[in-house]
Amino acid sequence: MAINKTIRPGLIQLRVLDLDKTLDFYKNILGLDEVCRTSDGRVCLKAYDEFDHHSVTLKLADTAGLDYVAFKVDGPETLENMKAATEAFGYAVDEVAPNTDQPGFGKRYGFTIATGHRFELYCDVDLSAKHPGLKNPDIWEEEPRGMRATRLDHFLLYGPNIAESERFCQEVLGMFVPEVCNTEDGSRMATWITGNNKPHDLAFVEYPQAGKIHHVGFYLNDWSAVGNAADLIAINRLKLDIGPTRHAITRGLSIYFWEPSGNRIEVYAGGYTAYPDNPQRVWDASELGRGLFYYSGEVIPSFLEIVT
Amino acid sequence: MAINKTIRPGLIQLRVLDLDKTLDFYKNILGLDEVCRTSDGRVCLKAYDEFDHHSVTLKLADTAGLDYVAFKVDGPETLENMKAATEAFGYAVDEVAPNTDQPGFGKRYGFTIATGHRFELYCDVDLSAKHPGLKNPDIWEEEPRGMRATRLDHFLLYGPNIAESERFCQEVLGMFVPEVCNTEDGSRMATWITGNNKPHDLAFVEYPQAGKIHHVGFYLNDWSAVGNAADLIAINRLKLDIGPTRHAITRGLSIYFWEPSGNRIEVYAGGYTAYPDNPQRVWDASELGRGLFYYSGEVIPSFLEIVT
Amino acid sequence: MAINKTIRPGLIQLRVLDLDKTLDFYKNILGLDEVCRTSDGRVCLKAYDEFDHHSVTLKLADTAGLDYVAFKVDGPETLENMKAATEAFGYAVDEVAPNTDQPGFGKRYGFTIATGHRFELYCDVDLSAKHPGLKNPDIWEEEPRGMRATRLDHFLLYGPNIAESERFCQEVLGMFVPEVCNTEDGSRMATWITGNNKPHDLAFVEYPQAGKIHHVGFYLNDWSAVGNAADLIAINRLKLDIGPTRHAITRGLSIYFWEPSGNRIEVYAGGYTAYPDNPQRVWDASELGRGLFYYSGEVIPSFLEIVT
Amino acid sequence: MAINKTIRPGLIQLRVLDLDKTLDFYKNILGLDEVCRTSDGRVCLKAYDEFDHHSVTLKLADTAGLDYVAFKVDGPETLENMKAATEAFGYAVDEVAPNTDQPGFGKRYGFTIATGHRFELYCDVDLSAKHPGLKNPDIWEEEPRGMRATRLDHFLLYGPNIAESERFCQEVLGMFVPEVCNTEDGSRMATWITGNNKPHDLAFVEYPQAGKIHHVGFYLNDWSAVGNAADLIAINRLKLDIGPTRHAITRGLSIYFWEPSGNRIEVYAGGYTAYPDNPQRVWDASELGRGLFYYSGEVIPSFLEIVT
Repeated sequence: MAINKTIRPGLIQLRVLDLDKTLDFYKNILGLDEVCRTSDGRVCLKAYDEFDHHSVTLKLADTAGLDYVAFKVDGPETLENMKAATEAFGYAVDEVAPNTDQPGFGKRYGFTIATGHRFELYCDVDLSAKHPGLKNPDIWEEEPRGMRATRLDHFLLYGPNIAESERFCQEVLGMFVPEVCNTEDGSRMATWITGNNKPHDLAFVEYPQAGKIHHVGFYLNDWSAVGNAADLIAINRLKLDIGPTRHAITRGLSIYFWEPSGNRIEVYAGGYTAYPDNPQRVWDASELGRGLFYYSGEVIPSFLEIVT
Repeated sequence: MAINKTIRPGLIQLRVLDLDKTLDFYKNILGLDEVCRTSDGRVCLKAYDEFDHHSVTLKLADTAGLDYVAFKVDGPETLENMKAATEAFGYAVDEVAPNTDQPGFGKRYGFTIATGHRFELYCDVDLSAKHPGLKNPDIWEEEPRGMRATRLDHFLLYGPNIAESERFCQEVLGMFVPEVCNTEDGSRMATWITGNNKPHDLAFVEYPQAGKIHHVGFYLNDWSAVGNAADLIAINRLKLDIGPTRHAITRGLSIYFWEPSGNRIEVYAGGYTAYPDNPQRVWDASELGRGLFYYSGEVIPSFLEIVT
Repeated sequence: MAINKTIRPGLIQLRVLDLDKTLDFYKNILGLDEVCRTSDGRVCLKAYDEFDHHSVTLKLADTAGLDYVAFKVDGPETLENMKAATEAFGYAVDEVAPNTDQPGFGKRYGFTIATGHRFELYCDVDLSAKHPGLKNPDIWEEEPRGMRATRLDHFLLYGPNIAESERFCQEVLGMFVPEVCNTEDGSRMATWITGNNKPHDLAFVEYPQAGKIHHVGFYLNDWSAVGNAADLIAINRLKLDIGPTRHAITRGLSIYFWEPSGNRIEVYAGGYTAYPDNPQRVWDASELGRGLFYYSGEVIPSFLEIVT
Repeated sequence: MAINKTIRPGLIQLRVLDLDKTLDFYKNILGLDEVCRTSDGRVCLKAYDEFDHHSVTLKLADTAGLDYVAFKVDGPETLENMKAATEAFGYAVDEVAPNTDQPGFGKRYGFTIATGHRFELYCDVDLSAKHPGLKNPDIWEEEPRGMRATRLDHFLLYGPNIAESERFCQEVLGMFVPEVCNTEDGSRMATWITGNNKPHDLAFVEYPQAGKIHHVGFYLNDWSAVGNAADLIAINRLKLDIGPTRHAITRGLSIYFWEPSGNRIEVYAGGYTAYPDNPQRVWDASELGRGLFYYSGEVIPSFLEIVT
């Protein structure tokens, strides 16, 4: 039997401490476009290569971090099926009415997963006014800025009981799990999960505190774009965490750094083409350093310790 | 309702004129690995980043060209559903028994589509003995050779009535159509079709003669790999068709050239991430030159004239 | 005996047909900065990575082409030595007073070489107000624009008796000749000449008409920058001549195209490190196609026919 | 008056602890070719893009480190001039007869500079049997291996009184100094020195112990080659020091790591074009972290502490 599909993680709402300075980063360094502002002062942004209304919402708050992530699914029937499946899985589902807090978005269903994160699902969202061309299109409509992030790519969430969250993504969201990392006693330490051919749409690391986010990943075109992003990190005096480097896990090329509000951002390129029939790659916890940071082979302390 | 899915084009059988010389190209220049030879002298190959038994079979023949392409689907239920749907679409389906002419492959269903090409479907195939690592894997098990093709990517077929073949790919194979090119009178001139997040798994160009192939595309990691491939074309005195260039269509980075038997090969990198909910891009025939060869903006005569 | 040295080709004056449109290309697509305008309406520009006052002067005229190129030499003693050596070589030398037609430039000596081109020599020029940082410098002071040309690199001149012009560059300007191309009868067909470790500061092709220029080359950082330049050529609907490609001669990575006034521009990256003790590379005229356009192996007609 | 010129650092003799394992690194990972072995068991190697007999000699010893570096100068007259100038500078000069310990090399003059390193000068050396092609040449004669190092590029020496060594390189070797780093009291902390258009042929860091070497640098073509080198470091389980990163100083793209005997190697690409008339860039010691490791902005302890 064919299963329902999520199309992609399509929206993330992040808390920021200094809206102007942080917005300058997202717009002029990362390269997103500001789409609109909400009546309560949040700012909606999108990457130049995305079609939908917006993919990132910034909200002024006292702490940095993640409010929620929302996944686009492939139609209203899937949306209702997934709502029912979520409830059957054991999570209470609430409903956000269309066009309330996220301009351009239709009805969303929300719920909290085992790791303490709020996930949402939706199938309807307006096209943005500014999107890739459709009639004899050039490769972009307006020259990309800064790091030239092409789209929201993935996020890494920290929390307890990732095994259940992983199972939820498979059973309810129709995703598969290209790579996992297990502790010596066989329990899940980390898991990389996708709903399509990207090696991950999201990932989890087992962590005692619920609802934490490690980083949000934006996609760059290639290793040269990663180098350009590193130059911009240096020139703009952003705080580097690690990189440019490669993950053996997903094979992605990567830099981690912090935006001005302290949310860790990854700019990410490459990665293998993930197919659901490929065998799962399995990492031992003792090899995780090499899996994460292939060149040094060592986990940096900040990877395990700093989350928002 | 969720639809059945093809996973990818997984196998192609090509006719070659000079097995030794051509095999040297596929192995030592393109970088495929020889997997096995059949009792009737055909050679089975795969790219270093593919898991399945093999993806390319070369057969000695008097003319170059394509015998057939086979698509992997996501399970036996889908396979039977697609067989029935193919027959309902109006094509006669034959069955190839497991492990007959293609070592390691399970049962295949075959049929001829409107453009005169033989398509096959299968869901079972052995893992190859040599595949990407699964336990704490490095990024490759053995250093890739030559152009470092990572996998079979796509093919472009020429034949009559591509509108029907396009409709078949959508209705029976569960694919979608990110880009099309129409003549001034609105009929389909070319179409790019995918079953996943790649911008194309295959493409068609309307052409009076049935069953022709324009090129087979292999995937390279990025623009630098495209440059390296161009160097190898020069050093090995292969005949260049065009490139390095970019297609505006799919946005891929590309070189077309001919292998020693005269089959046109494309090495291809980049390309956008295709999502089924993205609006379709539409090209006018008058703009096709720019769509195909973005830098020169002109169709080269060989693109329209030389097929095998 | 140690010989006098030219440091680099430091200034070029080009004739353009439409100042506004052409200037837009040099500033916003190629990425030069406008430094100043002269009282007679010429525009002085420089690349972001150059220190001296300016390197390109555009002059409105009825025909595109080259007025002259000027080489910076390593001091007043060298300048006077070279003036005397030029006269001894047989060329009449005139003097351009400081700060007359080229703002910021000291005294220049000018003369016409065998191929009919005006060369000038100078040793004094002001630093530009905007130049690479000197105190704890970042890699750039202001984000480069467009193609991100780093500097004026070289030019290719067409004219008669290139053998004499080559000898002049060696004997008077202290340059050496990393590569040459000879006709079957042993006469010089083309020559690549440098005063430093770049594979060429200038080149000549034998041509019946005197004083012609084939192209001016600007330097880009690498193959990725060449790809970006190609994208900008396409997006801005500039007329491509050839590329992206590689020259076997110099090994440079290259695109030729025409700016809006019809001067052919090359954006060029890579190339080997030329040392004066390396043996000279020699090309047969019959192999020049491969030497110039390594990937196709064929001279394009425009290379030999279109000059300004 | 024009000054004598060194052409390049042309030869380095390194001490290694395990000849077979270390040689495997230089040949199969770094990509050098073995040229010959001496009667006393040393191994001579060269990079694929070098013309001279060899550029690296490995000698089995009890400690890793540098025996000496030798600079090629532009002829016998310069050689004798520099010998005299070295003696006049105050260093005792010895002579190594042609073809004794370094096969293919002519007479060398040797002496010890202020920082305690042995420098040698020579002008005659045989061409290697295997060198870049000279007649209608391809871009390489044999496909480069591994990291594809194109040539010996530079080295960084640690020792006392670098101010004197810097002055020696300028006054006797005819070099110039594109960048320096000074302590708060104005004394020289580090200096980057070149005899041509590369941003450095060698560098010094002030250090109490004499005759130490920090690293030997080999040139790679670009940032993509740096990424490939990083992959090979990971796959071959070499010990990474830092990188891939960029130096703000020289602007080079870089990885530091240790070969199996413990000599630190840098693979290096990019870097600006250095001209002798460019103003000198000056770094404050407090900014050296950003100068060296532009992305993190911090000196890693190993940079200052680990030398051989």
